[in-house]
Amino acid sequence: MKKIIGDPPNRDVPHAGKGRRGFLRQGAALVTGAASAGLAQGASAQGLAGDPWERVSGAGFTGYGQPSRFEQPVMRHIGRPYGDLAPGTGSALAPIEALEGVITPSSLHNIRSHSGTPDIDPKQHRLLLHGLVARPLVFSMEALWRYPMTTRIHFVECSGNSNRALAPQPAQVPAGAIHGNVSCSEWTGVPLRMLLEEAGLLPQAKWLLAEGADSAHMSRSIPVEKALDDAMIALYQNGERLRPEQGYPVRLLLPGWEGNMSVKWLRRLKAVAEPTQTKDETSKYTDLLPDGRALQFTFEMGVKSVITKPSSTMTLPRTGYYEISGIAWSGAGRIRRVEVSTDGGATWAEAALTGEERPKSLVRFRLPWEWTGKEAVLQSRATDEKGRVQPPRKEWVAQFAADVRYHNNSIVSWSVGADGSVKNVYV
Amino acid sequence: MKKIIGDPPNRDVPHAGKGRRGFLRQGAALVTGAASAGLAQGASAQGLAGDPWERVSGAGFTGYGQPSRFEQPVMRHIGRPYGDLAPGTGSALAPIEALEGVITPSSLHNIRSHSGTPDIDPKQHRLLLHGLVARPLVFSMEALWRYPMTTRIHFVECSGNSNRALAPQPAQVPAGAIHGNVSCSEWTGVPLRMLLEEAGLLPQAKWLLAEGADSAHMSRSIPVEKALDDAMIALYQNGERLRPEQGYPVRLLLPGWEGNMSVKWLRRLKAVAEPTQTKDETSKYTDLLPDGRALQFTFEMGVKSVITKPSSTMTLPRTGYYEISGIAWSGAGRIRRVEVSTDGGATWAEAALTGEERPKSLVRFRLPWEWTGKEAVLQSRATDEKGRVQPPRKEWVAQFAADVRYHNNSIVSWSVGADGSVKNVYV
Repeated sequence: MKKIIGDPPNRDVPHAGKGRRGFLRQGAALVTGAASAGLAQGASAQGLAGDPWERVSGAGFTGYGQPSRFEQPVMRHIGRPYGDLAPGTGSALAPIEALEGVITPSSLHNIRSHSGTPDIDPKQHRLLLHGLVARPLVFSMEALWRYPMTTRIHFVECSGNSNRALAPQPAQVPAGAIHGNVSCSEWTGVPLRMLLEEAGLLPQAKWLLAEGADSAHMSRSIPVEKALDDAMIALYQNGERLRPEQGYPVRLLLPGWEGNMSVKWLRRLKAVAEPTQTKDETSKYTDLLPDGRALQFTFEMGVKSVITKPSSTMTLPRTGYYEISGIAWSGAGRIRRVEVSTDGGATWAEAALTGEERPKSLVRFRLPWEWTGKEAVLQSRATDEKGRVQPPRKEWVAQFAADVRYHNNSIVSWSVGADGSVKNVYV
Repeated sequence: MKKIIGDPPNRDVPHAGKGRRGFLRQGAALVTGAASAGLAQGASAQGLAGDPWERVSGAGFTGYGQPSRFEQPVMRHIGRPYGDLAPGTGSALAPIEALEGVITPSSLHNIRSHSGTPDIDPKQHRLLLHGLVARPLVFSMEALWRYPMTTRIHFVECSGNSNRALAPQPAQVPAGAIHGNVSCSEWTGVPLRMLLEEAGLLPQAKWLLAEGADSAHMSRSIPVEKALDDAMIALYQNGERLRPEQGYPVRLLLPGWEGNMSVKWLRRLKAVAEPTQTKDETSKYTDLLPDGRALQFTFEMGVKSVITKPSSTMTLPRTGYYEISGIAWSGAGRIRRVEVSTDGGATWAEAALTGEERPKSLVRFRLPWEWTGKEAVLQSRATDEKGRVQPPRKEWVAQFAADVRYHNNSIVSWSVGADGSVKNVYV
């Protein structure tokens, strides 16, 4: 394309008309009509009137940018069950209904914290690795910075995500306020295996106790098998240092496993022979069964998906073309397939996927849809590379006692009314 | 791993010792010594004293988070050649020396603007598609939201990136202040091809004039061939709506091509028969040759890499293990290989890559290195899937007139002194 100025312009550039690569080939379309969305308005060829911002010099540069003031409503959904008594205890869920793609901006990443976000000075903070090891070690953040690192895109989902979908009546709130306790980032850090090898794990070490530097000292027991597999001592999130709410300056990251095991503000790993039976793996984060016993150590998050566009509390302004889009993920590996239904599960069509090559990552699915103005029930159903299929809500609920609150990966349903209103429904 | 509480603990979890997957297999290591970085200090088994932040409740939730106060020095490098006379004219470069992985946080994305950042109301903004088309169309942002979208990770590099490396003397500033006019995001938007097909491009349409809604009305001519290939009308960046500095509410994205063609704040695409010969494709963004002629329309950015860690103005605190790490990219497609030299180009070792499966995206390269305390000159050399190799600086410079300022993709050199100081050098 490069040319010498003065040469005749290149006339060999091809024009429109070579093989269509339109969106209809992306998946089994639910569109019955035109191949084009056709949502634009006709225009005169004269052009546009100038807008006010075209007539004044724009704003100068900022060292650290922020969203447009017109995007200020896009905020995390904050839930504080104890209110001002414990302002840092609870969750802040990602507004997945307003997001696109796969990466969650760090400013909107979901948060689950048990005693607020500590204000840690990285120069003072240390990570201790001790217990059943040949050489107990302590790492400054500066030392960790010099270790070999790895970069991978993974989701982090709180195992309490979607527990609001277990309420007796479907909540009429945005999708993120129910299902947004999941996010996806590019994480960079040191493979935990490398640090364990340096310390010399003893053969009797079967578990690690991971402990945070928050005032709750949130703690979990981690099987050594996972620690030696894909566990990471994460220092960076989406290119920059971890955000305070995600564990600054250092967190454990256990790809695909329930979020609170990826202990934030990590201060200590102790190699031990048995699980430590901490509060957050006994009285909490266990799933009560109908017979009164409880499932413990459900580490791997299930295969799951949710339609974000359109979703609960939105309104379709008119009939015609829409793209149904959403996110899918599995703690077991890659997403193989996402199917979409617009008739409450009677029939399904396969959606197009973005990012499905990455294990334990969010995947974006998309399917064209033409809304004719009739009532509809939208659902998505994910299948992962292990062949596990996202279960119907009734089937999932029947496995547990009535007050189960973790690991809900069941199918989500949104109804579309004849007036275009989208509502949360249980099907 | 799931177990019923009360059952005996699972004793089948394997311990350390199965096949090493240490970092030394990632690439041809420059480490001659131990297999482990060995940067930690020995510790007593008693544990850590509690830090102050462990004794108080942490901060509550925020709707939109920010970095730790300890990260405030990580800012874009702002260059305003006309100072307060034109505060929005110039560049702000990404602090690549402080970043990791491949994704650039949107708050730190490089900026090149000709008349500042306009404050655009998305409800008022329109995109006009007219000229040599059967049906001139105008798109509201709400209409664009309903179109089929695509999500891809791509870099955007200003073709003026690294022009500071053409100064007579090597600048002793951080890597980002020289080479940070490049960033990489996950972009989501509507394939431009789809809108052109809806408008019905006429056969005589060979170019598009793309025009921004900034007060400079920054404009470039785009070959129809590229517009029908992988061009995107981008609406989202790293999951959220575009940032104002990156074109909110809508920009053109031409993957792999010089940054200012990806016109920000896009207000108009006009299909035309010939290039429009705008200011920013004639007097600017052209490369002056020694004979006084100029190269025009060098659209595709060259194959390139830069070591970010360690880099200019840093100091290695002591001898021993370091990871050499940096970014590589090519406008022609995928990065096939990055080689690293620590002796100014006499010998090379191949680095490990992350993200090399993605075309026209930043790739992260890493190589273990043991610094023995001797002087060293660090260089990286990228090769892309088309077989193009990043050229030595002298060879690149010799092609052009003395005041060339665009498209510099030549090899970058950092010297390491016996005192550990890292400096920018021309080799």
